[in-house]
Amino acid sequence: MLTLASDFGTPYPAAMKGVVLQRTDARLVDVAHDLPRQDVRAAAFWLREVLPWFPPAVHLVVVDPGVGTDRAALAVRAGDHALVGPDNGVLLPAARALAGEADRAVEVFEVAYADPASTTFHGRDVFAPAAADVHEVGVANLETLERVSPVDGFVDLTFPEATVTEREARGTDRNAGGTDGEAGGFDARGEVLVVDGFGNVVTNVPGRVLDGHFGGEVLVDGDRVPVRAAYAAVGAGERLVTVGSHGNVELAVNQGRGDEAFGLRVGEAVRIESA
Amino acid sequence: MLTLASDFGTPYPAAMKGVVLQRTDARLVDVAHDLPRQDVRAAAFWLREVLPWFPPAVHLVVVDPGVGTDRAALAVRAGDHALVGPDNGVLLPAARALAGEADRAVEVFEVAYADPASTTFHGRDVFAPAAADVHEVGVANLETLERVSPVDGFVDLTFPEATVTEREARGTDRNAGGTDGEAGGFDARGEVLVVDGFGNVVTNVPGRVLDGHFGGEVLVDGDRVPVRAAYAAVGAGERLVTVGSHGNVELAVNQGRGDEAFGLRVGEAVRIESA
Amino acid sequence: MLTLASDFGTPYPAAMKGVVLQRTDARLVDVAHDLPRQDVRAAAFWLREVLPWFPPAVHLVVVDPGVGTDRAALAVRAGDHALVGPDNGVLLPAARALAGEADRAVEVFEVAYADPASTTFHGRDVFAPAAADVHEVGVANLETLERVSPVDGFVDLTFPEATVTEREARGTDRNAGGTDGEAGGFDARGEVLVVDGFGNVVTNVPGRVLDGHFGGEVLVDGDRVPVRAAYAAVGAGERLVTVGSHGNVELAVNQGRGDEAFGLRVGEAVRIESA
Repeated sequence: MLTLASDFGTPYPAAMKGVVLQRTDARLVDVAHDLPRQDVRAAAFWLREVLPWFPPAVHLVVVDPGVGTDRAALAVRAGDHALVGPDNGVLLPAARALAGEADRAVEVFEVAYADPASTTFHGRDVFAPAAADVHEVGVANLETLERVSPVDGFVDLTFPEATVTEREARGTDRNAGGTDGEAGGFDARGEVLVVDGFGNVVTNVPGRVLDGHFGGEVLVDGDRVPVRAAYAAVGAGERLVTVGSHGNVELAVNQGRGDEAFGLRVGEAVRIESA
Repeated sequence: MLTLASDFGTPYPAAMKGVVLQRTDARLVDVAHDLPRQDVRAAAFWLREVLPWFPPAVHLVVVDPGVGTDRAALAVRAGDHALVGPDNGVLLPAARALAGEADRAVEVFEVAYADPASTTFHGRDVFAPAAADVHEVGVANLETLERVSPVDGFVDLTFPEATVTEREARGTDRNAGGTDGEAGGFDARGEVLVVDGFGNVVTNVPGRVLDGHFGGEVLVDGDRVPVRAAYAAVGAGERLVTVGSHGNVELAVNQGRGDEAFGLRVGEAVRIESA
Repeated sequence: MLTLASDFGTPYPAAMKGVVLQRTDARLVDVAHDLPRQDVRAAAFWLREVLPWFPPAVHLVVVDPGVGTDRAALAVRAGDHALVGPDNGVLLPAARALAGEADRAVEVFEVAYADPASTTFHGRDVFAPAAADVHEVGVANLETLERVSPVDGFVDLTFPEATVTEREARGTDRNAGGTDGEAGGFDARGEVLVVDGFGNVVTNVPGRVLDGHFGGEVLVDGDRVPVRAAYAAVGAGERLVTVGSHGNVELAVNQGRGDEAFGLRVGEAVRIESA
């Protein structure tokens, strides 16, 4: 199985598919070709969220603002998976997630496909043939490929962690009902990692802080906002705090855009605390 | 064969594909992942139009504004096809179309996948594994799955029917030529079901009312508009009435947007009558 | 292998896939379904760029503003490939490229699928079944299909060629350093063929004119612009001239839109000359 992800839109991904299919009969699965353009961090986030759901595969990833410069091309082994793409950090968060599940270390290799036909489309001329070759030789044997060799250094990318302080809850009225368990007091200072296509604001605050607060409220940058498990648990157009499918605290609006309602953008600080 | 349809955009569908591929080697076919967002009626319409063209398959459908609430998850058997998705009506029009072709009844089952990993992404955590399991056990045997059981009630969804009155044509000049047969007089009062991506206005008026009117004109909300078989049979930017690929009367503009030219939106009434 | 390309957006391509899958078990590959709407020239350009990267396949192409008129349906054999689509020129540039690689001539056939179910969706009712049938009978035998016959005439489509005059370079300072070889003087008068989704302006000027100019500058409509191999070789938001993945001169902006920065649209003239 070989998956493809890029920020190319149309129709460049088709050229990559053709190149891959010249070299392998692998099943192809499109992950996405409309990842946020040239946004390495957002792509890294989304790949970390979706690739771990796949069975063992080679993942071709091309979000590559540095195409044609001297940035290297990488193949990364992560358990039974491999990722192939540019050396700009986009592969690493997903690779760590995949390797972690297999209790293995991430292994990084350089892919030296010399003399690509273009300096502007290494997705087609470097990464697609490399990914197909890794698929054919097998993830376990990828370093047996002639043009693949271990590297010492590479560009890493990590997401900032939120600071969470446990504390006594202030102002939570336990007699008001509606909460679903023991609500721990907390004060979390984090930031916005990405905004998804629905406008949901994905923070780096771990979802566990909301344990016991469902049905109640928390403070988001000082404003009281209901904590609910489902978007539709509040009225259309109303704000809520929830835990997204990635396990992080998410700020949303039922049938609306959370980014607009909360006035938050990627990289901005957000404080979430018990009420 | 397992098809996937959603309103997720990018990149959430990839997680569903991964989950499905963990459980089955079925051929995957993307139907669409940019169905109109959280618009259950529009999704139901489009699925009814496209799914009957497929060979027997399991169709995973996730347009689910009620995710995380207590709405049920359904598996619907329709002839040799099955549809898996939320209990909000989105599956039913397509299911009736598929079952009707097989001269069979629609059979509705509840899917009880307990304790999903999220409350916000049942496409990944409930519907994808359920659809894969239905594919593996076979549509004919889906009720043998442990977590599948018949239901009594479910949310249905039907599209309004137009009222069509046959009548003597008024004002049709048979000597003007250009009509293609016997033009029956009619007065149809319907509504707009959907507007497609080209801006074509799809009504619920059955296309047969236009028999014999091609080459002539009909009245749309009182305005005379040419009836043509092809968009390009009128000049660029000009309006026409035609029969769309769904068999309904469609209001269009050659190389333009019918919704803007006719000033019509989804759900609005439209009257189409012989001239 | 059967590829699909259209300007349909959502969800009409799914109906084509269903029809194809009723007739063949071929591997399906989506090339693109968001080709520029009803823009036969742009579609023809992109197909010429991407289809030659595929292994032998049948390519179903539907960009068809004349649907329902008397324009013919074609099957075109190009080496071991076949293309099926409307007779409006969209197939020809890709067909010539594919046939040229195989050192074979393009062979054009008419496909007479009588009485399609619709006059507005021949992608589903004519081209999809025809492409599936060509796949099943084999590209080499496509004329053995009952409804396929040679044609005399068809609509062709070619792209204009730029006029390139070699000349003495004026004003190039060879001592300034940074160039990568012998910079030939030239004066190219061409036009904009397409603008891609990144806003890169693809001209019809052959990339070879830039040999020896990388690291230096050329004049674009009289303005000095750096010539670089990589977008990121200039600062964010700055203009550059490069050779795109199609081999033509491309006008771009690093992390921005070349069409806006150069003020150029499809079909407009552009002059590129040595500085």
